[in-house]
Amino acid sequence: MSHDSFENGCACIDGDYVPLSEARISLTDMGFLRCDATYDVVAVWKRKYFRLNDHFERFEASWQRLRMSPPLSRGEMREMLDECVRRIEVEDAYVAMILSRGMALPGVRDPRVMQNRFYAYATPYVWIVKPEDQEVGTHVVVCKETIRISNEAVYPKIKSFHWGDMVRGLFEAYDRGGYTAVLTDADGNITEGPGFNIFAYHNGVLLTPTTGVLEGITRRTVLELAEELGIEARPESVTAQVLTDSDEIFITSTAGGVMPVTTLDGEQVGSGWPGPITLQLRQRYWQAHDEERWATPVASPEDIRHERGFGAP
Amino acid sequence: MSHDSFENGCACIDGDYVPLSEARISLTDMGFLRCDATYDVVAVWKRKYFRLNDHFERFEASWQRLRMSPPLSRGEMREMLDECVRRIEVEDAYVAMILSRGMALPGVRDPRVMQNRFYAYATPYVWIVKPEDQEVGTHVVVCKETIRISNEAVYPKIKSFHWGDMVRGLFEAYDRGGYTAVLTDADGNITEGPGFNIFAYHNGVLLTPTTGVLEGITRRTVLELAEELGIEARPESVTAQVLTDSDEIFITSTAGGVMPVTTLDGEQVGSGWPGPITLQLRQRYWQAHDEERWATPVASPEDIRHERGFGAP
Repeated sequence: MSHDSFENGCACIDGDYVPLSEARISLTDMGFLRCDATYDVVAVWKRKYFRLNDHFERFEASWQRLRMSPPLSRGEMREMLDECVRRIEVEDAYVAMILSRGMALPGVRDPRVMQNRFYAYATPYVWIVKPEDQEVGTHVVVCKETIRISNEAVYPKIKSFHWGDMVRGLFEAYDRGGYTAVLTDADGNITEGPGFNIFAYHNGVLLTPTTGVLEGITRRTVLELAEELGIEARPESVTAQVLTDSDEIFITSTAGGVMPVTTLDGEQVGSGWPGPITLQLRQRYWQAHDEERWATPVASPEDIRHERGFGAP
Repeated sequence: MSHDSFENGCACIDGDYVPLSEARISLTDMGFLRCDATYDVVAVWKRKYFRLNDHFERFEASWQRLRMSPPLSRGEMREMLDECVRRIEVEDAYVAMILSRGMALPGVRDPRVMQNRFYAYATPYVWIVKPEDQEVGTHVVVCKETIRISNEAVYPKIKSFHWGDMVRGLFEAYDRGGYTAVLTDADGNITEGPGFNIFAYHNGVLLTPTTGVLEGITRRTVLELAEELGIEARPESVTAQVLTDSDEIFITSTAGGVMPVTTLDGEQVGSGWPGPITLQLRQRYWQAHDEERWATPVASPEDIRHERGFGAP
């Protein structure tokens, strides 16, 4: 039945592994028809997950707050992620887990009665800013026509597919010559952009916004590594003016790590080149992917049989 | 290949007609992974569409504002809707048209390069409030913990699947003994609920909110019919207090028409029974489904051949 190979991605749908391009969900999935789903994305680097447990914990907090419950245990979900990663046969992968509200029965709209559904997929590692573009830094626009969906409407701490504000912001950024966008909240504070958090190095302190943001695992990692490196860093409200006055700016995401920003609204940031704090943190970030505290090897089928007590092969 | 019948619904995916329960879209559809889609829903009543052109016009305005473009002409989309309706073999149907941003190529996130995709489906007519429940009226809660996604984040006039605020509001309504929810905006003005607009008959004037709302076709129909009936009616900001002080409340949707509300936040509205203005408008609304200005028969294949000049069968 499969016409494509797994090299561009592998998905697990209802226990079946299929090439990502052939993965299908129901048209009536409320994850689609109501954007009623949550997800998380973990990176695999050199065949090791980075902070897998932290991603699972955030994922769990998200579905609990949405009053969902996955049909599988964490161990079962983990096995599906492992198998998706193995099938694409790459060292470095982007691995997504999705929990959807599930399908509505005909004419039934009550989300409480729907059976939640789990989907997983892995693709070769995704870079929001490609490595070669990171060398010169990327171009960010602070949107004026679009603001972030407020916390009082949809919780930003629950990772969701509510990207209408982000896509609208992207078009504004393209129109103004930017590569990507960041949105403010209704009070004019910087929040985040499509798939990433933002950091500003300002007056010798590394700042990252606190409101209207997903608490990114890469963001957390940068805050922790900054502390280890003796760089003063704290989550704090960041106005557009503070961002403009910063010496360095970078964005962070599981999809690309620590990515330098060298123009803001068309104006040069600092020297116009990726700054020393940014480069130091980016280097440490990638080094950390091999450290035992955060790295979890992708399991082989033999590992799984062994853990279950079936003995080594 | 089909295991289900068409009686619960028929979908058209890439030109194929399938039972709705078997209709599938790609997991990588940005309509799912980014909620990047718009849709519209038109009713068929006694095998006639109600205000089909108005729905197509709103749909067109929505995708234009999202900078999308359907892969089909309006005539081709219409033929798909017709065929979906014919296959379910009912008199009264709920007919949906969806335009999605489409699939991302591996690693590509730019919405400008994606090929937009059209999906259609029809089901037997859907009632947000079932006819037997309309006889006593339904129970609405004004949410206190959740507000509507703001116009500055996601345009409410573009019909979209951004329902995170609505689903969160529904859970609050359930917790407080309600059947459904309405949300206010950040200024405390009433907006709308999951899939419906709201009307309040207050001091002899029929009011309906203006901000944070989709401009529903049923809402427009009620405003037009009220004028014909000599009922003073106008779109105007409605506070939660005005709603509380109203003599009658009803909600409107293509999925259910004019539906009386008889408790608000657990308190009786007016007499506690559907009021005379509500009942008069509900009656006129259903009568109007047979009027030539608004009714368009579902075409048969013969009609279509005839229009195309292939001659009658």
